[in-house]
Amino acid sequence: MFESTTQLRVRYAETDQMNVVYYGNYAQYFEVGRAESIRNLGVTYKQLEETGVIMPVVEMHVKYLRSAHYDDLLTIKTMIKELPTGHKVEFHQEVYNEANKLLTIGKVVLYFIDGATKQKTAIPTIFKDKLEKFF
Amino acid sequence: MFESTTQLRVRYAETDQMNVVYYGNYAQYFEVGRAESIRNLGVTYKQLEETGVIMPVVEMHVKYLRSAHYDDLLTIKTMIKELPTGHKVEFHQEVYNEANKLLTIGKVVLYFIDGATKQKTAIPTIFKDKLEKFF
Amino acid sequence: MFESTTQLRVRYAETDQMNVVYYGNYAQYFEVGRAESIRNLGVTYKQLEETGVIMPVVEMHVKYLRSAHYDDLLTIKTMIKELPTGHKVEFHQEVYNEANKLLTIGKVVLYFIDGATKQKTAIPTIFKDKLEKFF
Amino acid sequence: MFESTTQLRVRYAETDQMNVVYYGNYAQYFEVGRAESIRNLGVTYKQLEETGVIMPVVEMHVKYLRSAHYDDLLTIKTMIKELPTGHKVEFHQEVYNEANKLLTIGKVVLYFIDGATKQKTAIPTIFKDKLEKFF
Repeated sequence: MFESTTQLRVRYAETDQMNVVYYGNYAQYFEVGRAESIRNLGVTYKQLEETGVIMPVVEMHVKYLRSAHYDDLLTIKTMIKELPTGHKVEFHQEVYNEANKLLTIGKVVLYFIDGATKQKTAIPTIFKDKLEKFF
Repeated sequence: MFESTTQLRVRYAETDQMNVVYYGNYAQYFEVGRAESIRNLGVTYKQLEETGVIMPVVEMHVKYLRSAHYDDLLTIKTMIKELPTGHKVEFHQEVYNEANKLLTIGKVVLYFIDGATKQKTAIPTIFKDKLEKFF
Repeated sequence: MFESTTQLRVRYAETDQMNVVYYGNYAQYFEVGRAESIRNLGVTYKQLEETGVIMPVVEMHVKYLRSAHYDDLLTIKTMIKELPTGHKVEFHQEVYNEANKLLTIGKVVLYFIDGATKQKTAIPTIFKDKLEKFF
Repeated sequence: MFESTTQLRVRYAETDQMNVVYYGNYAQYFEVGRAESIRNLGVTYKQLEETGVIMPVVEMHVKYLRSAHYDDLLTIKTMIKELPTGHKVEFHQEVYNEANKLLTIGKVVLYFIDGATKQKTAIPTIFKDKLEKFF
């Protein structure tokens, strides 16, 4: 399994009038978690796109257990539990607050798509080479 | 079953450099769909909050089938398939483009929470009274 | 002078924990106002981009007089006070609430840029033709 | 003069189909710059709010000189050039990319408002005490 963590601080813009982070903003937090997890592997999502492969999200599942608040320093844990063998990759994600309470659980599925042909393709080699040593 | 539709137009702000609507922005589209569906019942989400009940989202599930693009006029279909009997309500949501293609399928689960005590509570009467005639 | 109005409803996502619309979200409201004003002329911003001209914002000025709140139905007034003769266009914008109170005053300046060469260019003909009858 | 810098990385969500950061998102970057500048003083914006003072934005002015792109590590420089003596504070802000090119210049004016009475008030003492040693 590959696992990575990153931190971010809740912006005022991300709160709503319920005094908590708006439920839709976790998609951005998950994106930051995924981008930083790939960077921790030694490659960047930007570099993956530069190989001609784009990675649109095809599924997202979120469970909201506890609220995040303004100025909270959140920890985003990102896990890839299975080495992608086909045309998709699953990221499992968890968001924790500073008291180490689990706030949110997410699963985001992305396809590998050839940017030119818009057809499904395999995981880019520069991503796979970094990832397979964890499996 | 209760069903309602509303329309909105994709903003430039909502696109990303993949030239499509960013995956996280559908949570806002679903919110608009839910708010307008409740308004169509003859009550508003704002009025529900004014009764002292807040409705945090506890679960969201999204499948992304096709992309939405800048300036698309989207139709958001919102359905409540079961009359809420406990402390939660499930909204089923679908997003269509102008060619009537199904782009996105969502399910969003919200709890009824007493804003003062932060405890789970029942569906507000003004909401239930409007809703139960559909079941 | 060319003047156009459009309406939009404040989303929960757009509020912050001060119980008002977050100050940064007015840029989106202004964008909606500009896009609808151009549509009212009989052309769309999307069509302008398809002519190969992009219109990046180079200046924005906003005065916040009163707050907008969740579910408010806002009126966005958009004005072009001078026919663009060079490579830029100025949009003047005002946001009103349902009580017709002026909430926000904005001015947004955009350049006409050739998407291929990234150089400044003149106003697209399809835009100018529609606009000049107002001056 | 008080000056502070912080860094943030551009999210995919913050780009638009022009392949650059959407013009409205700089308001969030400025917010992060202001929050971190106050934290660098030894107090937090959250603590200021807890004293009962809220700080709504009343003016924003932005000049966009160059574009920011996905995954850019931006430096936000935040300056207070005059010690607030009345009921408002002016933040001057600059955004730089990794090549140290100046991308954006902003000025944001905020009022000090008593959260209970909604009337203008003076700068909170815990903020002023930290700030005045720079003047």
